[in-house]
Amino acid sequence: MPARTDHEARRRDVSAAVWKVVAAEGFGGLTLRAVAAALGGSTGMVTHYFPSKQALIKHALELAEERTRTSIPESGDLRTALIAVLPIAAGTTEISRVWVSSWDPALAEPELGALEKARYRRWRTKLEKLVVVAQEAGELPAGDPADLAASLAAFTHGLVVQTLFDPRAFPRKRLLNLLDTHLAYLRPAR
Amino acid sequence: MPARTDHEARRRDVSAAVWKVVAAEGFGGLTLRAVAAALGGSTGMVTHYFPSKQALIKHALELAEERTRTSIPESGDLRTALIAVLPIAAGTTEISRVWVSSWDPALAEPELGALEKARYRRWRTKLEKLVVVAQEAGELPAGDPADLAASLAAFTHGLVVQTLFDPRAFPRKRLLNLLDTHLAYLRPAR
Repeated sequence: MPARTDHEARRRDVSAAVWKVVAAEGFGGLTLRAVAAALGGSTGMVTHYFPSKQALIKHALELAEERTRTSIPESGDLRTALIAVLPIAAGTTEISRVWVSSWDPALAEPELGALEKARYRRWRTKLEKLVVVAQEAGELPAGDPADLAASLAAFTHGLVVQTLFDPRAFPRKRLLNLLDTHLAYLRPAR
Repeated sequence: MPARTDHEARRRDVSAAVWKVVAAEGFGGLTLRAVAAALGGSTGMVTHYFPSKQALIKHALELAEERTRTSIPESGDLRTALIAVLPIAAGTTEISRVWVSSWDPALAEPELGALEKARYRRWRTKLEKLVVVAQEAGELPAGDPADLAASLAAFTHGLVVQTLFDPRAFPRKRLLNLLDTHLAYLRPAR
């Protein structure tokens, strides 16, 4: 069935162009015209797959979700889970940049905002389980694991944002050091 | 000189409409048309003061800067400086929302990105001085004050983002408790 294969191949091309645009220009730059230009095609070809700006935005968020899933290890301890979010490799920097950019449309549109809220809740729940393991190992203080998870999520995302704007001030080595020092401060005295 | 007064009054009206739009719709929604609609005027009236989308964006950032300055106390200790950034009052929530939204255009446009980088550096420098005071008072561990300032900025901004998407999960009381618990964890054992 060559027609179907063509369709899928073309959809993949359009999808790659969507990612290319959003990773370079953010959501403010994600227009049908920009995607068509990145594709070397017509806006008609883009609208065939993504009929509106809203559809483009949702597709870009799906791509970010997919890339996040493959970049973040399923298993591992708390430190590994937090490191996976830091922009210390080209791939994770690009994904972080897209997520941070997505906060503009997500704060403006209730449907996208609800998705981001749910995504944050899933992440905190995942971290909370790792916090409990770390508490049992005596690596984190006693205290509400949900609060510790929210605080560690905050610390990590806050570093992500500062790094995106000032990568020279936050090279890989400093980021890892900031995280490890932070975890060391949290470690209960024996 | 009534003409001049009219001009200034009208510019203030346009400026208020810019803030209204960006606080509700973010930077993705900040268009000449949206500002004209908020103003109940024509796009011609808006372009008279802000000739381009770029000019609108820069003006919205100036307004955010101005509002941030008046909402953040000039003096006070580290805890006061961090609380001032948390979205626990209607005014600071609106300002936070605009800053977080602005990261989309700021990551896409080098000129805006440079402004945000400089703003972050100024904030970290301010926090660093307060960190040194807190270290001298035995409230924070010894260690690089610039690193502690970056970590505290990260923690606070990360909480801001989570709160904007999930205000019910982060009411004022919980935010203050998260901050105080965090500062208590950092306090060296005696």
